[in-house]
Amino acid sequence: MESLTVLKIGGNVIDNPSVLESVLRNFAAWQNHRILVHGGGKIASKLMENLGIVPKMAEGRRITDREALDVVTMVYAGLINKNMVAALQSHACNAIGLTGADANLIPAVKRPVKDIDYGFVGDLNPACISVTMLTNFVKNGLVPVIAPITHDGAGSLLNTNADTIASSVAIALAETFRVRLVFCFEKRGVLLDPNNEQSVIDFMDMPLFLKYKEENIITAGMIPKLDNAFAALNSGVDEVRICSPDNLMEGTKIKI
Amino acid sequence: MESLTVLKIGGNVIDNPSVLESVLRNFAAWQNHRILVHGGGKIASKLMENLGIVPKMAEGRRITDREALDVVTMVYAGLINKNMVAALQSHACNAIGLTGADANLIPAVKRPVKDIDYGFVGDLNPACISVTMLTNFVKNGLVPVIAPITHDGAGSLLNTNADTIASSVAIALAETFRVRLVFCFEKRGVLLDPNNEQSVIDFMDMPLFLKYKEENIITAGMIPKLDNAFAALNSGVDEVRICSPDNLMEGTKIKI
Repeated sequence: MESLTVLKIGGNVIDNPSVLESVLRNFAAWQNHRILVHGGGKIASKLMENLGIVPKMAEGRRITDREALDVVTMVYAGLINKNMVAALQSHACNAIGLTGADANLIPAVKRPVKDIDYGFVGDLNPACISVTMLTNFVKNGLVPVIAPITHDGAGSLLNTNADTIASSVAIALAETFRVRLVFCFEKRGVLLDPNNEQSVIDFMDMPLFLKYKEENIITAGMIPKLDNAFAALNSGVDEVRICSPDNLMEGTKIKI
Repeated sequence: MESLTVLKIGGNVIDNPSVLESVLRNFAAWQNHRILVHGGGKIASKLMENLGIVPKMAEGRRITDREALDVVTMVYAGLINKNMVAALQSHACNAIGLTGADANLIPAVKRPVKDIDYGFVGDLNPACISVTMLTNFVKNGLVPVIAPITHDGAGSLLNTNADTIASSVAIALAETFRVRLVFCFEKRGVLLDPNNEQSVIDFMDMPLFLKYKEENIITAGMIPKLDNAFAALNSGVDEVRICSPDNLMEGTKIKI
């Protein structure tokens, strides 16, 4: 089985041009099959602010109304995605920028309204991802760069969580490739001591995760990330890595 | 040889949602291989205005400075392109939205500075278009939707004329397909009398074009369009058609 890496980069990378450039240069130099999934960063909020659009919130969570959808479509699928593609091309990496609407790669459903109407937000099912098309691209030497936008199949784009896209794509491709899923974020990995960047936990499996949780070493924001990581591993992904932009191949390695 | 149609739609279509929807519905229903190339329309100018960006002009022509490039990238490659893709997908047309940077489809060069520095504007050579990749997409059942943005291969996106992209793509594919190039604009075709929409010239070849020019029937804005059309025909394109959104398969048919 050939190997494939899904790298997810978030706002902390995108908002820092020199860090982004360095991550893209490293990513371009990788030799195996690879897919980049990116989040949004602060550019969309800044553009909304400059346009005088007040973000709609409900219970502290952002709502994607029509205006906000247009802004994230412009910023994520246009500005960020296409500039990344141009940068990767300059490093001889044959990138192709895509949303979930393109080639119907990632069909989603508009999040059902329960307590909160999140607006144009997409939930997705890894089983619906077009594995054949993504595999075609990758085997043709293309490097998909996926923006966090999907569609409902009825003509509407949907704002979609980039972590979810990354893990769903990784899961969907796990039948065809040996998949490594890399989450690049602001810390050097999962830390034993959140105040000490040198305390990276090199390796974690489920028993260790349970032990660290019990000992309150791993708390708060890290738990959903690790729950997602183990969910991906339980669905066939070979390895998950959590690292920072300056050590993409190190950080915390997570296996079942 | 299989046939392929390149349809170019401009601002007059894009600025009118119901006309755009109708064009996309018709385009989606076509059965042969096809590629859509779109221009910009007024949305980019409106966004610049809303952001308080004053368009830079030189000798009456617009300059694409960094701010303007960011805006057209957002609007053309993001908002317009991805909403078209979602609409086509809703009509069961497997659209994929692309710029010239994606898959290195359309490498361009930044326009050299002579009297005017146009800024981030791309000039392109049909011979540089990635025919193999475009052919792969088309033969895989995908329908490329191309935004008027290219790249210089050194990391910079470039604003590029959509008519030029459409005719260059048509010329580049003419070795592989029998190509028809359709320009959809505000008139029902080339008119004998510019004030009479019913006076469409059904058919034109080079001798007729020369005759109409001599008789001052064809003047001004129409001449560069027709010069481009004949240039495409002289470079292997089988047929060019100039028509309006409501009669995509009629209008003026142009052959060598």
